[in-house]
Amino acid sequence: MQSLEETTLSSRRVYEGKILNLRVDQVLLPNGKESSREVVEFSQAVAIVAVTDEGKVLLVSQYRYPVGEVLREIPAGKMDPQETPEVCALRELKEETGYTAASLVKLMEFYTTPGFTNELMHVFLAQNLTAGEQSPDEDEFVEVEMASLQEAIEMIFNGQIRDGKSMAGLLAASYHLK
Amino acid sequence: MQSLEETTLSSRRVYEGKILNLRVDQVLLPNGKESSREVVEFSQAVAIVAVTDEGKVLLVSQYRYPVGEVLREIPAGKMDPQETPEVCALRELKEETGYTAASLVKLMEFYTTPGFTNELMHVFLAQNLTAGEQSPDEDEFVEVEMASLQEAIEMIFNGQIRDGKSMAGLLAASYHLK
Repeated sequence: MQSLEETTLSSRRVYEGKILNLRVDQVLLPNGKESSREVVEFSQAVAIVAVTDEGKVLLVSQYRYPVGEVLREIPAGKMDPQETPEVCALRELKEETGYTAASLVKLMEFYTTPGFTNELMHVFLAQNLTAGEQSPDEDEFVEVEMASLQEAIEMIFNGQIRDGKSMAGLLAASYHLK
Repeated sequence: MQSLEETTLSSRRVYEGKILNLRVDQVLLPNGKESSREVVEFSQAVAIVAVTDEGKVLLVSQYRYPVGEVLREIPAGKMDPQETPEVCALRELKEETGYTAASLVKLMEFYTTPGFTNELMHVFLAQNLTAGEQSPDEDEFVEVEMASLQEAIEMIFNGQIRDGKSMAGLLAASYHLK
């Protein structure tokens, strides 16, 4: 599918920030015309569907400033430089919920919104959980709750879960575990 | 969950572009401290799981410049101003695949990556399809293929589908139709 590709002609860095950068590139299209592409550069990230021995999943609620709402999500976070997705998944799960996991299986990976950002999300199923102390980042305020996997799936369809990675992860886990 | 909210102290517009804007806000955290929040302002969007009478789903492949790869996705696109999600879904399906749908059901809506953008994705199940002529945007180069819903689900887990909205939409449709 080589014929679909676009070639970079020039690149201009518009913004370098705390969690993201923005650049605007001039590109050559497959039809020989030129266009511009706005690209948000973002780190890779992980999300974790953590299921207890009783079949309950861990859900975290936090205020998401860009959308102005408290969202119910699965635990997730950005990968630190040099960190592997697996190490990041265990770290974020522990920080946000206090739980550690003896079993970690990768379900899939995906681009969150490839039309304008390179953010890549690695999704894990965590099992054999042990409860412990939460240790969120200083700027992070998170409320933890538990629901059965079936209840969490219902929350996707009744509007109580409105986060893409959480939907994809919970549905994938449900498919994987059935 | 009022206590989780963050309050805007000031807002600075960093970039106004073709498909997105970027602003950096200073906010007051629940603990009384201050922090900054980078927000990519993006339009709402739609994605369509289109299933033929024979149980095949329509998949589109296109080069996604921000990730530098050709991705296999479900049909999708940005909403025009004043356009409803339903009208946009039928328009994008027609433009990208040539198909029209006599039945359109909303499956769910979600934020694609609420940590840094307000992009909201409306996901539809389209059925009772009729084939027709593709009419992509001038800058859009799309290849269409069909797969059974089961094959498409397998593509999620074997890495042939690496797009978040497509995973969430296909898994939700599979759940809805079972």
